[in-house]
Amino acid sequence: MCARSVKKASDLSLNLQTKKEHFTNPLYLESGRILEPYDIVYETYGEMNEDKSNVVVVCHALTGSHHAAGLYEGDTKPGWWDGLIGSGKAIDTDKHFVICTNVIGSCFGSTGPMSPQPPHQNPYRFKFPVVTIKDMVKAQRILFDRLGIHHVKAIVGGSMGGMQALHFAIHFPKFADSIIALATTYATQPWAIAFNKVAQEAILKDPDFQNGYYDPDVIKEQGLAGMAVGRMAGHISFLSHDSMQKKFGREYKRTDGLYELFGKFQVESYLEYNGYNFTKWFDPLSYLYITKAINIYDLARGFDSLEEALRRISSNLLLLSFKEDMLFRNEEMKHIADILKKIGNTDHTYIDIDSDYGHDAFLVELEKFDHYIREVLER
Amino acid sequence: MCARSVKKASDLSLNLQTKKEHFTNPLYLESGRILEPYDIVYETYGEMNEDKSNVVVVCHALTGSHHAAGLYEGDTKPGWWDGLIGSGKAIDTDKHFVICTNVIGSCFGSTGPMSPQPPHQNPYRFKFPVVTIKDMVKAQRILFDRLGIHHVKAIVGGSMGGMQALHFAIHFPKFADSIIALATTYATQPWAIAFNKVAQEAILKDPDFQNGYYDPDVIKEQGLAGMAVGRMAGHISFLSHDSMQKKFGREYKRTDGLYELFGKFQVESYLEYNGYNFTKWFDPLSYLYITKAINIYDLARGFDSLEEALRRISSNLLLLSFKEDMLFRNEEMKHIADILKKIGNTDHTYIDIDSDYGHDAFLVELEKFDHYIREVLER
Repeated sequence: MCARSVKKASDLSLNLQTKKEHFTNPLYLESGRILEPYDIVYETYGEMNEDKSNVVVVCHALTGSHHAAGLYEGDTKPGWWDGLIGSGKAIDTDKHFVICTNVIGSCFGSTGPMSPQPPHQNPYRFKFPVVTIKDMVKAQRILFDRLGIHHVKAIVGGSMGGMQALHFAIHFPKFADSIIALATTYATQPWAIAFNKVAQEAILKDPDFQNGYYDPDVIKEQGLAGMAVGRMAGHISFLSHDSMQKKFGREYKRTDGLYELFGKFQVESYLEYNGYNFTKWFDPLSYLYITKAINIYDLARGFDSLEEALRRISSNLLLLSFKEDMLFRNEEMKHIADILKKIGNTDHTYIDIDSDYGHDAFLVELEKFDHYIREVLER
Repeated sequence: MCARSVKKASDLSLNLQTKKEHFTNPLYLESGRILEPYDIVYETYGEMNEDKSNVVVVCHALTGSHHAAGLYEGDTKPGWWDGLIGSGKAIDTDKHFVICTNVIGSCFGSTGPMSPQPPHQNPYRFKFPVVTIKDMVKAQRILFDRLGIHHVKAIVGGSMGGMQALHFAIHFPKFADSIIALATTYATQPWAIAFNKVAQEAILKDPDFQNGYYDPDVIKEQGLAGMAVGRMAGHISFLSHDSMQKKFGREYKRTDGLYELFGKFQVESYLEYNGYNFTKWFDPLSYLYITKAINIYDLARGFDSLEEALRRISSNLLLLSFKEDMLFRNEEMKHIADILKKIGNTDHTYIDIDSDYGHDAFLVELEKFDHYIREVLER
């Protein structure tokens, strides 16, 4: 276990703890392959009560991590859902014990493609097995078992985090009282797969990627143009026409000439900055593996139909979609709600949130939905 | 002049002719730079009548060319708007003399960045000036003058072709009786600029692009991964969620395993095929220059407002948008119509065509709109 030291006042109030667990038993993956041994890094906020009835699981998205809230020493940017998790916030750490794990396949401490492969301990790279959302969830379930958590109050997640939440609901139907899934889908549709394809292809064809045999320190230092390009495409899918319009309009960089080939609009600067910055903190092989997991995500896999899968749900379910989500359209969430209604599930709520921000609304427009989450957790 | 020989019956009926004109006078560009000399390649179908009253100008999109209809000898694929242009078709070559020119900056014979730069005659490459939609239109106007065409019945174009048509309407208001613009906009919005940015960045960062000093034959032979990636992003913007859903669904390649990292969905195969195939027939520098022209396209440039620009229009105007166009949204076309209405223009029609195909509907779903074009031309 490697708890980070935490100094800042905002974190003291959170009781932020970062830990790692090592597992030597094999993790049997959906593909038939085995991951063994493996690590899971996780973070907790707040304190578990005596009867362990106040646990809330938070699941992260594609490039997220276990660091969902609070500040690390010396950092100025808090965790990715800091506006939602904390003292007095919707996921109130005065009341709840919150746990967020880094998914397997990722690059923030849990076992992923750049982790040492036994017995030689060189990085797996392409020898890492394809993992699925179901595998990510299974690994978390095993972690929770070790921590003595056999039942939780709620599981909350957006985007790929929502996929995990829904997987929990179907494959471990008695594990959570409530499931809250935001900005996600029942199965990844071709529009989203296409964006991931652009990113994957851009990474694979970048010579600096060296067919997976890159030096991660060099990538972090120099960036990886292919991954930057892929991330730029991703950023398009995370926004919407309207949010781009509001954010950037047709503002042109003041230093650039309109008729210079390399003169830039603000939207171009934004994409460039975020694209290249991304390559400093995310691993390209993890990007390939996690986008693969997202692409092959299908709640109905292993069942005769999506309906059959959804029939297994016994938790209370809150589905939140965002009107102008271009990545996972609101109609995909509605499709889940429609089936639940059809099969007589009376313990679910579907809300389509009025927003023109796009997919990233679940990270940005917290004030539009945090009361729904609070309401579920305060029941 | 270099007329191609044309054998096929379908083309004989069209009287397809491909020609090139050489201009030695300077072309004064919007940027203040000069292009001199320059060539314009164009194609004609049908025959001009004696009083030259049957001329219809067709303008091509980003990667289109002057080859809008008919078959070249040995080809199996006709011109890009063949379903619309021909004997008995909406743009009826039995009645109309149709002319389509390859825009300057492109790579199909008109002067572009890979054309020889005087005096040394090496390719311009990055020394080629940025050209604008206005410049493309101006060059066409000069060509028409040389051909003795001082007035035309109609100008028709979709996407970047629509931008040209609208530019004609504003900058040469007496030149055409009718203007028909499809799937276009009044100024390129950040969503579309963002897609172009991904493509530009992917090209520029591809080492095989050699900072513009590539060998075009090598590129054609080996492909250019960066341009393929960029084109894949483009293809997303040309389609829609629904058309991707219908075309591909979640179909997986039968030969591929679901848990293979490089296993593919059909949508991935489609993007890959079209992306890499594209690099065999399009030039990367032209892609950079033409996407730049599209990005900086703004009908209002040079006027106090878009309203002032649109007040100059005296042609009859038909605006056709497509409901699920993700690149140039129907609301952008409606914005033009709203202003025209506001300023009392009574000679325009705006129709939003019910389609879920996406931007490419203007190339694909001809049966949904060809009667509108026919109706304008038969007046």
